[in-house]
Parts: sequence; C-alpha cells; structure tokens
Amino acid sequence: MKLSRRDFFGAAGVGAAGAAALGAGSWAAGRDAEPATVTAAAGQDAVEFHGDRQAGIVTPAQDRLHFVSFDVITDDRDALVRLLQDWTTAARRMTRGQDAGPVGAVQGNEYAPPDDTGEALGLPPAGLTLTIGFGPTLFRTADGTDRFGIADRQPAALVELPGFAGDLIDPTISGGDLCIQACADDPQVAVHAVRNLARIGVGLVSVRWSQLGFGRTSSTSSDQVTPRNLFGFKDGTDNLKAEQPATLDRFVWVSGTDSWMDGGSYLVSRKIRMLVEVWDRQNLRDQQQTIGRTKGSGAPLGQRGEFDPVDFTTQVEGDVAVPPTSHVFLAHPTNSGTAILRRGYSFVDGSDGLGRLDAGLFFLCYQSDPETGFVQVQRNLRTDKLNEYVQHTSSAVFACPPGVTGDDDWWGSGLFG
Amino acid sequence: MKLSRRDFFGAAGVGAAGAAALGAGSWAAGRDAEPATVTAAAGQDAVEFHGDRQAGIVTPAQDRLHFVSFDVITDDRDALVRLLQDWTTAARRMTRGQDAGPVGAVQGNEYAPPDDTGEALGLPPAGLTLTIGFGPTLFRTADGTDRFGIADRQPAALVELPGFAGDLIDPTISGGDLCIQACADDPQVAVHAVRNLARIGVGLVSVRWSQLGFGRTSSTSSDQVTPRNLFGFKDGTDNLKAEQPATLDRFVWVSGTDSWMDGGSYLVSRKIRMLVEVWDRQNLRDQQQTIGRTKGSGAPLGQRGEFDPVDFTTQVEGDVAVPPTSHVFLAHPTNSGTAILRRGYSFVDGSDGLGRLDAGLFFLCYQSDPETGFVQVQRNLRTDKLNEYVQHTSSAVFACPPGVTGDDDWWGSGLFG
Repeated sequence: MKLSRRDFFGAAGVGAAGAAALGAGSWAAGRDAEPATVTAAAGQDAVEFHGDRQAGIVTPAQDRLHFVSFDVITDDRDALVRLLQDWTTAARRMTRGQDAGPVGAVQGNEYAPPDDTGEALGLPPAGLTLTIGFGPTLFRTADGTDRFGIADRQPAALVELPGFAGDLIDPTISGGDLCIQACADDPQVAVHAVRNLARIGVGLVSVRWSQLGFGRTSSTSSDQVTPRNLFGFKDGTDNLKAEQPATLDRFVWVSGTDSWMDGGSYLVSRKIRMLVEVWDRQNLRDQQQTIGRTKGSGAPLGQRGEFDPVDFTTQVEGDVAVPPTSHVFLAHPTNSGTAILRRGYSFVDGSDGLGRLDAGLFFLCYQSDPETGFVQVQRNLRTDKLNEYVQHTSSAVFACPPGVTGDDDWWGSGLFG
Repeated sequence: MKLSRRDFFGAAGVGAAGAAALGAGSWAAGRDAEPATVTAAAGQDAVEFHGDRQAGIVTPAQDRLHFVSFDVITDDRDALVRLLQDWTTAARRMTRGQDAGPVGAVQGNEYAPPDDTGEALGLPPAGLTLTIGFGPTLFRTADGTDRFGIADRQPAALVELPGFAGDLIDPTISGGDLCIQACADDPQVAVHAVRNLARIGVGLVSVRWSQLGFGRTSSTSSDQVTPRNLFGFKDGTDNLKAEQPATLDRFVWVSGTDSWMDGGSYLVSRKIRMLVEVWDRQNLRDQQQTIGRTKGSGAPLGQRGEFDPVDFTTQVEGDVAVPPTSHVFLAHPTNSGTAILRRGYSFVDGSDGLGRLDAGLFFLCYQSDPETGFVQVQRNLRTDKLNEYVQHTSSAVFACPPGVTGDDDWWGSGLFG
C-alpha cells in the first residue's frame, strides 16, 4: 500500500508510538510499508498529474499560489536532465497528496535528513497542480552561451518580452531559466511543494524569485464564481474558460509547430503593484468608468447582468456606455483582436515604507504565442485609464511543454529526450 | 434590514440591473435599504465582536492572518479618539460580514468614493476577528513627548522589549503606536479589513509595517488539530487553550491592576526568519533532538503520543530523552517557569536574493505581563539548539485593552474616556 500524506499521518499516530518508545524516533512506522497503487480515497481532491496537457493551465483556478523562478547553476546537461526527472517523480507524488520522497526510502534511518520537509503531513492533496516552464535563458544565456546544447530547439515564440510604456521592471524579480507554478486550495500545500522541489534541486538550481498569491482573481471554468481583485471589482468574467475547447485550441495551446512545444502553452508573468490607496480615493463613477463595469454586479456599463455581453455601441446620455479608455474596452477581444487565458492571484507583501500596503496582482496568463497574446493585449492598453493606478514591477516569459503522459515520461522529455 | 456582505451581494445582482440600465451605476440598490438588525444567517461563521475580552486572543486560531502596525501621524487627541470610534464601528460591521461603511450612506451618489473598497463583497464573515493594541510610543514618543496626554496612563508592563542574544531586529518593521491583528479563515477577508481600517485612518495614521500569514502554527483550542510549522514539526501541542480559564486568568489576562488594562492582555510580535534550507539538510535525529519531539507523531521524545506529558526524567540508552538544549525542554513551563498563549502564523515573503526562500514564523503571543511572559521564555531559550536555524528580524509589544462591551463602547474607551 502506497500511503498518501493523510494515510501516512494516520499510520504515524499508531506506528510512531513503538518507534518513539524505543527512542529511535523513526518518524513513522508507515514509511516501511511497500509501495503500491494510490487509493482513490487518498486522492479525493487530487488533480491528475498525467495527461496530454499540463495541469494548472485550464484546471479550475485553485485559491492559492506559490510561484517560483529558478536560475540553473550547473552547466551539466545530464545533471539538469536528472533533476527534471527527479522533479517529475516528486511532482507526481505530491499532487497525489504523498510526501516528496518515496515512503520507505530512508528505512527509519534517523541519521539521514528526512526525504520530505514534513509541513504538509496530514494535509490532503488540496487540488495541487505543478506546472513547469522553460525561460529563454535556459536555451541561451544573456551572453549567448548554449550551456545545454538546446539553443537550436528554442522556439521562435520564446523571446524576452519587449518593454511597455510605464514599466518599472525590477530585474532581480524577473526572468529565470525555469519556473514552477504551484496552485492549491491550501497555501501550506503549495509552499510545501515549491520548497521540496527547491530542496531536490540544491546545487543545480537556485531560487531566483518567488511569489505567494493569496486570492485568485480569475475564473478558468464556467462553474466558478468570478472573484474580486484588490480594486474591488469582479475580474475575469469574460476570461477564456476550460469549457471552450475550440477557443483554447486557437488562443492557448500550441499546435502545428511540429516541435516539442505542440500541446504546450506560453506563460507570461507580470507582478503588478496596485496603488490601492490612490484608487480608494476615486469616486465610484471614476472607478467604474476606468474599469468599464459596474462595481456591485460586475455588469458591463450599460448592461444589466455580469455575464451580459460587452456592447460597445450602447449609449447612455449621449456617451458610449463603455468608455474607449476603459480597461474592459481596450482589453476586450473585440478591440485587442486576440484573447489570453488569465490565471492571476492577489498579493500583499507587507508595506512599502511610505505608509502604503505593498499589494497588487500577480498576473499570469497562458497563450499559444506571447506576441499575439499578452504583448498584443498590453500594447493595446497604452491608453488604459487603469494605468494611473498600476505599476508593472516584474516580468517573465516561459515555454510550458505539453503534459507528462505516464510514469515513464518526465518534464522536458520532448526538449531533452 | 441591515445587509451582510452576502445578503448585499445577493441584492446587488437584482438591484444593480435597474441602476446600470440607467447608466448611473450606483453599485447596488441594496445600499438604500434601511439599517436594522443583522440576521443570524448572515453571521453563521461570524465571531462575536462584543464582549468583556477582545476576540482574537483565545478565539480558536483562524487559518489566515493580516497584521498591521500603524504610526499615528496626528498630535490631535480628539482626532485620534474619533478615529478609534470610527474604527470600532467599522470593525463591528466587518466582523459581522458587512462592508466597512454603513449601507446607504452614500445613497447611490456615484460622485463619492465608495464606503467600502469592495473586494470582500460576496464573502462570508469567515470568522474574522479584529484585535487592537497600543504600543509604548503611543504614550510617550522616543523623545519623551506626551502627544495625547496619556503618559501617566502608560502601564508599567508596557515597555520596549530588551534585546536578546542573536537578535537581528530591523527597526523599520518593528514597533508601532497601534496594531491591529486581523485573523480570518479567508485571507481576502483579513486583507480587506486591514485595508479598510487603514483607509478610514488616512491622514491620521500611516501603515508602519504589515505582515501576511498564510498558515496558523498554533492551536488555541482543544478542538483544533495541531498544525505544523515550516520545520515540519507539530507546533503548539502544549499551548495554552481556551478551555483552561484558570490558567488563562493566571498567565494571559491582566487583572488586579485597577487600571484600564484589567481584562486585557499584552501582545508580543516577533518575525522569525527560519533558515529552512539549512534545517532541511539536518538529519532526522538532529532535527528531533533540536525540537525535543518526534517529527511524525509529535510525541515528546521518550513518549508515545502527541499529547503525552513531556517527562524530563525519562532516559533512553543512558541519556535523557528530551535534551536540555532542545526547544521543548527550554520553553516548557517546567523549565521556563511561566506560560504564554502562542498564536503564530507561517509566512513566505518571496526569496532573499541569495537563492533561499524568505520564510518563517510570524510569532504572536499573549500574556498578562511581557516581562514574566515572552521575555522570561526567550531569555531561557539562550542555549536553545533551535537558535542555529532562526533569526528574529522584527519585534513589537502592544497593550491590548479589554473588549468592546456594546454598541456605545469603543476601542480605547478605558484609556481615553
């Protein structure tokens, strides 16, 4: 029987008694159990790790996020490949609610560090998804070095994002060779996953930056209630949804490139500081005209219900209801000419030393090509009234490969295999 | 009918339609409803705000925290008193699941900023508690100024904490004239509460520092499962519990001082960076000998179950089972000679620029006197093996007055009234 964290925890309550009585303190007798198939009960709230697509993209957005970007600090291709394989094994386990290392590996050897850091013991899978991405610098460093012999496999679409008007990008919290997006309904489960992956990578990768998100700001499924962002508005009402496969095929999934990226997607991350204190002083009319929606119901201005279509021809008292400088107007597919799958989270990183909360949106979006996705949308936001209230401070782009299809497959097998 | 956020939200779905159709965009027709009594249904997961004691101290620890420390930037005593009264009104509302400002106050005036920032609309009370504390600098500034005429009311017990061996305190995230501890089971509800209180205080107070906690690390009720901290160990097994009123009276609640603090408690906050990468490289035996408990079950070394008493006489193979340099040994009431009510939360604030997670414990504890509480415990931890793995980076102490007893009472009425 392979034990889930929950089962293991149960076993520990009984099994540890004997061990502790001996003073040995093996941290659970359950670790000696033989591996077998995970029971369905253990995975009740588990999201399947295996599949043609990576989980964590169109998976209904979980409530919490821990996102981490790594620098690869080895030049050894084989070591990097082994790391990706080890990571895959650990990710497969943790998304099922197990600990990061195989149960029984240390066989009660108290002179070895534990295989797992332990803080998620007793917690269920909590819908954990782990999604990996490869940054442009993995293929070619800033000075052009091809460390891993994969420069010729860099997709044309995977290039650093251009600068945008108003950018205040801090390079120390931008970019990265690898990223892992951990989403879960329990933050402890997401943090545990990132920490254990970082631990497995000691000496090979170094945490470049990481970001916790406490509240999702988009729905990625029609079954989800639209959440509110820190401006107090419903966000993501018209987001792409898992239930729109044809639209996702067009805008989110890579296809027809005859490369290792077919079935994958490109991830853009932007940390967006929101000047909430400034925003909170604006009157309701200004706020609504800036967003283009009603604050209470989330309805597009000039409409009645949240899910009423945005109609750019509706007039109110001689003016267009949705102003051409509003965020909804400029971001809408009708005017941006494209669509992206948003998957952002709110953050509060304490305060900024000037008496204000350091808060905002950690914006994540997936698209089949950043140039015709985020870049095109962001360029169209040049005249967005919302720009007065936000500052982009971090930026990154990653190529997220297709899914791991089974126990013999691993993250990056298409790229390195 | 006074509307809860949940009720209000429901009303908005219907009411906003008419308003939006007019283009007015009043953000919900429900705002015009007349105040009345909150229905029980609205407060299903609400914690009562009124009482002889402040909520948020022995209240079963909620899962999430937003803690904020303010500098008072006015010297006007009357303005400060009005702020405390306004805060009390808003806290009373928000802990019931309502928005921060009275429904109907702006009467649909779209040329006024909304009374509430909106991001908690539609969310239940989520067990929100708001607990206020007064710092030593409120009574007398660093240069000795008595801004508000209350220097003679400063309790003898409310003095800055002494330094401790190994302290790495950053003054910019320490101290403060006022603090508010917001605990809730939904982080959006806690963040919303702090933000709206900060907003009400614009021009009178300035956010000095704030801290988000994502996972509680202590139980304050016998009904709660003991959570794990970021060292992977169960934390707070032997914490004081709400079910021990006599012990709380002795160690937590102030009494017999014949002052405005009778019925209150002193709060000590310490931000404790945990060097998790270093810790994770230690073997299981070292980790357990450092803590004094078994990692799996949480049992004291030499015992069988988590809740078995810590027995300092038990021997294993000729040695004492719980080493005299272990955290449990030194912190235990038997050896520290005192007890405190812990109420800490785990944090991850991104990474530290050196490839490590900036993670740890935001330690909060309540006691009837800091000198015989936290200070005495912390002094006894001088030889704690755990000190190798932690760094205290922030420190503060606050006097938390007794509870607000009814609609006419307010935070600080005993001190300022």
